[in-house]
Amino acid sequence: MSERKTPSAKIGILTVSDRASRGQYQDFSGPAIQEYLSEVLTTPFEVDYRVIPDEQALIAKTLIEMEEGGCGLILTTGGTGPAPRDVTPEATEGVCTRMMPGFGELMRKVSLEQTPTAILSRQTAGIRKACLIVNLPGKPRSIRLCLEAVFPAIPYCLDLIGGPYLEADPAKVQVFRPTS
Amino acid sequence: MSERKTPSAKIGILTVSDRASRGQYQDFSGPAIQEYLSEVLTTPFEVDYRVIPDEQALIAKTLIEMEEGGCGLILTTGGTGPAPRDVTPEATEGVCTRMMPGFGELMRKVSLEQTPTAILSRQTAGIRKACLIVNLPGKPRSIRLCLEAVFPAIPYCLDLIGGPYLEADPAKVQVFRPTS
Amino acid sequence: MSERKTPSAKIGILTVSDRASRGQYQDFSGPAIQEYLSEVLTTPFEVDYRVIPDEQALIAKTLIEMEEGGCGLILTTGGTGPAPRDVTPEATEGVCTRMMPGFGELMRKVSLEQTPTAILSRQTAGIRKACLIVNLPGKPRSIRLCLEAVFPAIPYCLDLIGGPYLEADPAKVQVFRPTS
Repeated sequence: MSERKTPSAKIGILTVSDRASRGQYQDFSGPAIQEYLSEVLTTPFEVDYRVIPDEQALIAKTLIEMEEGGCGLILTTGGTGPAPRDVTPEATEGVCTRMMPGFGELMRKVSLEQTPTAILSRQTAGIRKACLIVNLPGKPRSIRLCLEAVFPAIPYCLDLIGGPYLEADPAKVQVFRPTS
Repeated sequence: MSERKTPSAKIGILTVSDRASRGQYQDFSGPAIQEYLSEVLTTPFEVDYRVIPDEQALIAKTLIEMEEGGCGLILTTGGTGPAPRDVTPEATEGVCTRMMPGFGELMRKVSLEQTPTAILSRQTAGIRKACLIVNLPGKPRSIRLCLEAVFPAIPYCLDLIGGPYLEADPAKVQVFRPTS
Repeated sequence: MSERKTPSAKIGILTVSDRASRGQYQDFSGPAIQEYLSEVLTTPFEVDYRVIPDEQALIAKTLIEMEEGGCGLILTTGGTGPAPRDVTPEATEGVCTRMMPGFGELMRKVSLEQTPTAILSRQTAGIRKACLIVNLPGKPRSIRLCLEAVFPAIPYCLDLIGGPYLEADPAKVQVFRPTS
């Protein structure tokens, strides 16, 4: 486990949406992620926020740029469904050296309690170097539901991969670090 | 989302079983799938029903033929266990361009409530062009259990991939299409 | 289904841990697995127990040696987290011809009831020839939890792949063999 405790963190927020990237509608999903982070994190953090179309090569390139730019955590939104243009999971898998199946399983499980079409989500998560990449769903309400489910495990995951040390407000989210 | 509303649909039912294909016993699984579809669907549908042995290349070839023959949905039964002859998931993965992990997860979850050996099932689902392929278990009782779990999400999945527009009797199954 | 009923079984227990392999601390995990097996199995069994460092090639080589040495079941412990040295799932996948996703799903599910960081586990299971390989977590308490969840399905899985015929004390674990 890394002993490194960075005084701040850099977090990537990547909205993947053809229409939002063309300005056809306003992106509410990226801001919803940032709002959640602002609400729960006590560690100061900087955000690298981008909105791009559903192009696999561009998503992959952007994830790499964010990781190389110092992001220890990247949260994507959009592009995880079964439609032909939905390629965020493929792009994510393409840039990660190891996948974390438990994230997708848990996010689908909690989403399924809200809607039967949750099984259509192909959300995944994986690790690239010292960066954790997590695919969140496209809709703001679903984003919060998924973040509430997986966030408690994220800071410890970042500890284990040598990422930034994140602390959260225990009144907002119960971050869990096992005492080993 | 596709706006196409086909007046009817073509659905493939593929029983994969060495013994049934040799006529050593009667296939009850394929008919159980057809019975479920007849019970819940109000959209007229045509069935392409075949019984073939547990040969990976033949399963793959048959799935492709069914898709190219116009099936927008293919439901397989059999060949998803751990035995050496069980190769339906491999054949399915081989012909799909994208996998849908949520289907297998949910089918194993509901089956596990009935039997602890449900974890031995390697059932999966995936998409080939505008066709969704779902592996169902081999036993009629388990088939119904799995169909009841995943069917509510299937029509919307077909909408998203450009497949046939399926409607069901709401008294039988609550098909879910999000209003986006 | 195999009719072979071996009078005894050989089971591999593989502890994967840099520190335990260097003797920096005592391995409690391997012995915890053996204790569980001794408690539940009524079939006589022989154990091939080894402690090795977190080296992917060495783990793969050891799994192959155990399988070729007659193990019909191999239970690993350690190396399933997200840290760079955690490579047990990769080594397992590398030597298996088919994966069994239901094992990892169920182990993460039951572990999640104890700790939110359970989603960080990348535990998997797969089959190499007539041998089932299952990754267990690193901590003795979590090992028991996972074994209690998946063990009921293991003997039937071994029947299906031509492995040893295992019988257990029904007062300790409800092994399930469907009557087909």
